[in-house]
Amino acid sequence: MIILITGGARSGKTRHALTYAGAKNPKTYIATAELLDEEMRQRAERHRLERGVRWETIEEAYDVSKHLLRLRGVVVVDCLTLWLSNWVLRAEEQAGRQIESLCSALRVTEADIVAVTNELGWSIVPDNALARRFRDYSGLMNQRVAKIADHVVLMVCGISVQVK
Amino acid sequence: MIILITGGARSGKTRHALTYAGAKNPKTYIATAELLDEEMRQRAERHRLERGVRWETIEEAYDVSKHLLRLRGVVVVDCLTLWLSNWVLRAEEQAGRQIESLCSALRVTEADIVAVTNELGWSIVPDNALARRFRDYSGLMNQRVAKIADHVVLMVCGISVQVK
Amino acid sequence: MIILITGGARSGKTRHALTYAGAKNPKTYIATAELLDEEMRQRAERHRLERGVRWETIEEAYDVSKHLLRLRGVVVVDCLTLWLSNWVLRAEEQAGRQIESLCSALRVTEADIVAVTNELGWSIVPDNALARRFRDYSGLMNQRVAKIADHVVLMVCGISVQVK
Repeated sequence: MIILITGGARSGKTRHALTYAGAKNPKTYIATAELLDEEMRQRAERHRLERGVRWETIEEAYDVSKHLLRLRGVVVVDCLTLWLSNWVLRAEEQAGRQIESLCSALRVTEADIVAVTNELGWSIVPDNALARRFRDYSGLMNQRVAKIADHVVLMVCGISVQVK
Repeated sequence: MIILITGGARSGKTRHALTYAGAKNPKTYIATAELLDEEMRQRAERHRLERGVRWETIEEAYDVSKHLLRLRGVVVVDCLTLWLSNWVLRAEEQAGRQIESLCSALRVTEADIVAVTNELGWSIVPDNALARRFRDYSGLMNQRVAKIADHVVLMVCGISVQVK
Repeated sequence: MIILITGGARSGKTRHALTYAGAKNPKTYIATAELLDEEMRQRAERHRLERGVRWETIEEAYDVSKHLLRLRGVVVVDCLTLWLSNWVLRAEEQAGRQIESLCSALRVTEADIVAVTNELGWSIVPDNALARRFRDYSGLMNQRVAKIADHVVLMVCGISVQVK
């Protein structure tokens, strides 16, 4: 079972993903953020405290597929957008291939996956060329993963709207 | 009855709020914008003309709760996002407390409230640190108010989509 | 029959419009982009290859109404946002009148129209005054066209959500 949870910033995506994981076990949380500054470290720590001790946390900014292929139970990936931005910043020419590799892992994993992503193209076209390209990669990734997903949920003000 | 109406810029939120208020009386419109420049004054004046004479208008950029607690009938608050930005610009450290205070007033008010808010986190992360923090406050406020609300409506191209 | 397809960047709007056009004939695609740089030319060429030979393509950055009034069969307009931005950049004072003219053509056309537009106001208010005004024009256009449309479809991660 693949669930994709999307939405804007601070729309309750992570909380919904954790709730969705519910009673399933074991529970793994894959954090894809590279903790580059204090603001990000504080956010990560706050999230970890909110999850509680029943969750194993893996910090993995790049090779998410490897974990999807070996894990069992329920796995929350939080989030695909940060994972993709890590790849784009490190090796932009690999972005397309990494998205394909992720999709391949999602198709064969034996775990239940709850993947969090972001809506980030509902605005005026950014001035910055890299930001424009990232919007494109991100939108294409969301479409590819949504196609594989059993359910897609859009978060609006903390409320889940099932769109697939 | 608490209704939260959200959506992007120029998506018909205010018009829908006024329509929603419908036949109920008395009608009060709380305008939270601080009219700092000519662009904003023109917008406020246009809105006032559209509402017509059956609406009492209160301009209140900060202490919205006070009015929610004393008013009866139907009250449109337009909008929570501007109200929150007023607080963040004046005293950012109070933002969380002000959101709680607003929620407390919403829980006990005897008026029917139609509150307008904005979706503003569906884009690339802003460069500006204050903009990022405001996105966070705003998203958290929307989640808090949506939890209290009886109905939440998302406006898309002037069309209302009920999400709660 | 007028269909309006909206959504964020890279949400699958164009693909959905082409699929929607389906078995109807003849098929015309009105491309409204002014191909000002290499990035845009490549995107246009990619889209043209994806459509295939059964589609006639018209490149028309300004006078879309003229074509709506004479064409038969199914016509995809891709997209209204670019068309509006062309007008705003060339003659901003005409934006409102052009939107009205477009709506008049949509009301009387004998073709089936599938119009693509964009959601671009779901973010922090832009610093740039022209960007703010364009957001406003764009939102008003979307509301006007949605009111005329028989159906309005919001794309989320490549999935169509019918909102009207």
